[in-house]
Amino acid sequence: MKSTIDLNMVNAFIPGRTKLDNLTAAMIDRRDALLGPAYRLMYENPLHIVRGEGVWLIDGQGRRYLDIYNNVASLGHCHPAVTDAICKQVKMLATNTRYLHDTILELAERMLSTVPETNLAHLMLTCTGSEANDVAYRIAQAHTGGTGVIVTETAYHGFTDAVAKFSPSLGPTVDLGAHVRLVPAPRLYHAEGADLGERFTRDVEAAIADLKRHGIKPAMLLVDSVFTSDGILPEPAGFLKGATDAIKRAGGLFIADEVQPGFGRTGEHMWGFQRHRIKPDIVTVGKPMGNGQPVAGLMATSDAVAEFGQNSRYFNTFAGNTVSCAAALAVLDTIEEEGLMQNAADVGKILRDGISELAVHHRAIGDVRGVGMFVAVELVSDRKTRVPDREFTSLVVNRMREKGVLLSACAMGHNVLKIRPPLILSVEQAGIVIETLEEALTFARAVESS
Amino acid sequence: MKSTIDLNMVNAFIPGRTKLDNLTAAMIDRRDALLGPAYRLMYENPLHIVRGEGVWLIDGQGRRYLDIYNNVASLGHCHPAVTDAICKQVKMLATNTRYLHDTILELAERMLSTVPETNLAHLMLTCTGSEANDVAYRIAQAHTGGTGVIVTETAYHGFTDAVAKFSPSLGPTVDLGAHVRLVPAPRLYHAEGADLGERFTRDVEAAIADLKRHGIKPAMLLVDSVFTSDGILPEPAGFLKGATDAIKRAGGLFIADEVQPGFGRTGEHMWGFQRHRIKPDIVTVGKPMGNGQPVAGLMATSDAVAEFGQNSRYFNTFAGNTVSCAAALAVLDTIEEEGLMQNAADVGKILRDGISELAVHHRAIGDVRGVGMFVAVELVSDRKTRVPDREFTSLVVNRMREKGVLLSACAMGHNVLKIRPPLILSVEQAGIVIETLEEALTFARAVESS
Repeated sequence: MKSTIDLNMVNAFIPGRTKLDNLTAAMIDRRDALLGPAYRLMYENPLHIVRGEGVWLIDGQGRRYLDIYNNVASLGHCHPAVTDAICKQVKMLATNTRYLHDTILELAERMLSTVPETNLAHLMLTCTGSEANDVAYRIAQAHTGGTGVIVTETAYHGFTDAVAKFSPSLGPTVDLGAHVRLVPAPRLYHAEGADLGERFTRDVEAAIADLKRHGIKPAMLLVDSVFTSDGILPEPAGFLKGATDAIKRAGGLFIADEVQPGFGRTGEHMWGFQRHRIKPDIVTVGKPMGNGQPVAGLMATSDAVAEFGQNSRYFNTFAGNTVSCAAALAVLDTIEEEGLMQNAADVGKILRDGISELAVHHRAIGDVRGVGMFVAVELVSDRKTRVPDREFTSLVVNRMREKGVLLSACAMGHNVLKIRPPLILSVEQAGIVIETLEEALTFARAVESS
Repeated sequence: MKSTIDLNMVNAFIPGRTKLDNLTAAMIDRRDALLGPAYRLMYENPLHIVRGEGVWLIDGQGRRYLDIYNNVASLGHCHPAVTDAICKQVKMLATNTRYLHDTILELAERMLSTVPETNLAHLMLTCTGSEANDVAYRIAQAHTGGTGVIVTETAYHGFTDAVAKFSPSLGPTVDLGAHVRLVPAPRLYHAEGADLGERFTRDVEAAIADLKRHGIKPAMLLVDSVFTSDGILPEPAGFLKGATDAIKRAGGLFIADEVQPGFGRTGEHMWGFQRHRIKPDIVTVGKPMGNGQPVAGLMATSDAVAEFGQNSRYFNTFAGNTVSCAAALAVLDTIEEEGLMQNAADVGKILRDGISELAVHHRAIGDVRGVGMFVAVELVSDRKTRVPDREFTSLVVNRMREKGVLLSACAMGHNVLKIRPPLILSVEQAGIVIETLEEALTFARAVESS
């Protein structure tokens, strides 16, 4: 059996496109047979990774790849502070939240101390970001009595039945809910000088009106606070304010999905929403939270969670277990002790500046943007019309993989390089990224014009 | 802030009912403030557990409790085979399924080899049982084009938005879906000699007809194969056959939820459904799968998953990660190497026999049943009428906790002791359970008649 072709997934392995060595081909066949048709691999030539070490992933032949795509191992793969915390706790106790335990309380205090300017008062834990957004939706429904959801046009928020219905980036063959409205992503590069905040607010207001016109009460506006799947859209800071006011006026909750931008990646704050100076009703968190340990969750205001707490109990067998909490505490410690937010800001800027310089000679680079250790490079076939160049982007991504640098792409046009290195990336390693990108851009141009 | 009273949850801590020591009371207040109103604790006097070791949980004062309720740490708390596997792998690599890796393939082969009599062909991994049932529901909807769900009247299948809608044990304040039908649990003790298989089949057929009458196409019949939340109902083996045939005739899938009964607990097979000699379309698994590590998933036939695989890709950042797979492999090894299924059968029988003997002098015991290391003791106020005695059950559960044995209760009447020890329980430890239960029954009787 062959993997199903998935043109909806950015950078998916497509069987038959590239000649693979026998070992890899056999392993893919075995995997397809065992895991079935819904799983995907990355890259035209998929990787067989056996070891991780800091910013590096190492394959079966001992080749090292610079991993600038993995925002789970945000402190670097196998960071000893986290692995030590896990190993210590897993030998002591790994059990659930129906017993009292200190680690979860300590974690809640530490997490809530990162958002003093908000009214967020409670931490609830899940195992995955999908679960966090799913529970957030249950809370929003209980609070508002509504079901309506507003998300951006290429958003990804998770895979559960409820959340997939408001994750349009899963592609047109995964149905959106009848209670879901999409708004255009706030793309400064395509804004033609318009006021992005005003426009986004107007779009959200129109979605609210359309929900109401269909008899659907709005429950929430849910956005990734740097709009990762939409193409990484952090600028201008503050543009989210009007939209959050609009959803609150309509009786809905504003939920910031920090699963991708959270835990210091923006280099200026712990959470992406903080650059917009807004007060979310709920903040969902995940991916880097345990540096690989399955732990995620949400912070909510007392007001938002009151009705849910009245009607429902919440228990998740593995979530908030002592081991996951110990891992999450080690992550928070390490971000602080190693000054990783500052490094994200500094090295992220070096990355963006270096890539911006490449734009002088590489006209495919339409825009370089980002914040902290989050860099987007939008590749276009024409700078004037800003038409997405999906094929060129795919060539660049796969060339970089061949040259030992792992990244991927995003956005509706599949034409935005998504660079999301571990927060520990060094200046020297940023240099490798820039150098390799230059080679890949040159390579892709040569292929396109051949 | 005080915890919300939850009379829908069996054995929940109810603030104010018991005088707590100052330390515990302060910790509960801190917890309520930090985690909010949806979390619950167990027991009238909640436990502060700091360490686990085999069958024992140990509190802050060093007191040891025999844990016969935890079917996560099914090999015993902190089993070295699992903690070693986790520590080894977590220092090597913890990453996702978009790279090739051996552990997930080995795990899939091992899991699928446990079901040779079925057509189950693929393993898909999640982090929690809730996610497994949620994804199973997405698969069933894609396969059938329907949304209708049939479950038993006190079933629990998880907490996601979709799954909570078919988890009636969450209580009347959590809405069931309009597309959900409940059927009575197949309770032999209350069957008055009727043929349980016939009755259950008829009930499922009636639910199918009612769904269709409302224009809802059936997607699935989903049952915990030993009906844990309904009161642990394994007998008579075979009674599920007619109902599974009925749902298949109606075009729906039959899904066995093995999150609680799976991984050898029944002592005769790896999975609870196997005693009924049926062929599920999907089997969901979880809790003991990683002995505490967050790992769960499902096995499905190629036929069932085809449409889902066509329309959707499946990716779960943490699920199927190398560490979780290593933990799950260690669990499978240990069950085999330590002969735990045989022990579950042998010591489970000793437990049931011993408790049955108590029934001679304790008329509150209406029924003792179970399979393997799964024991139910139904407590009634009158053996003839079999009226549930919820208050008496609560007295027994809390007395046993005071005497150092941890269990809980289940079933619609909240009157069935749920005894679910680690599979390693020894004959001597079974003796402690029986002895402590005798004391607790005597105590509860004295309280009731005082």
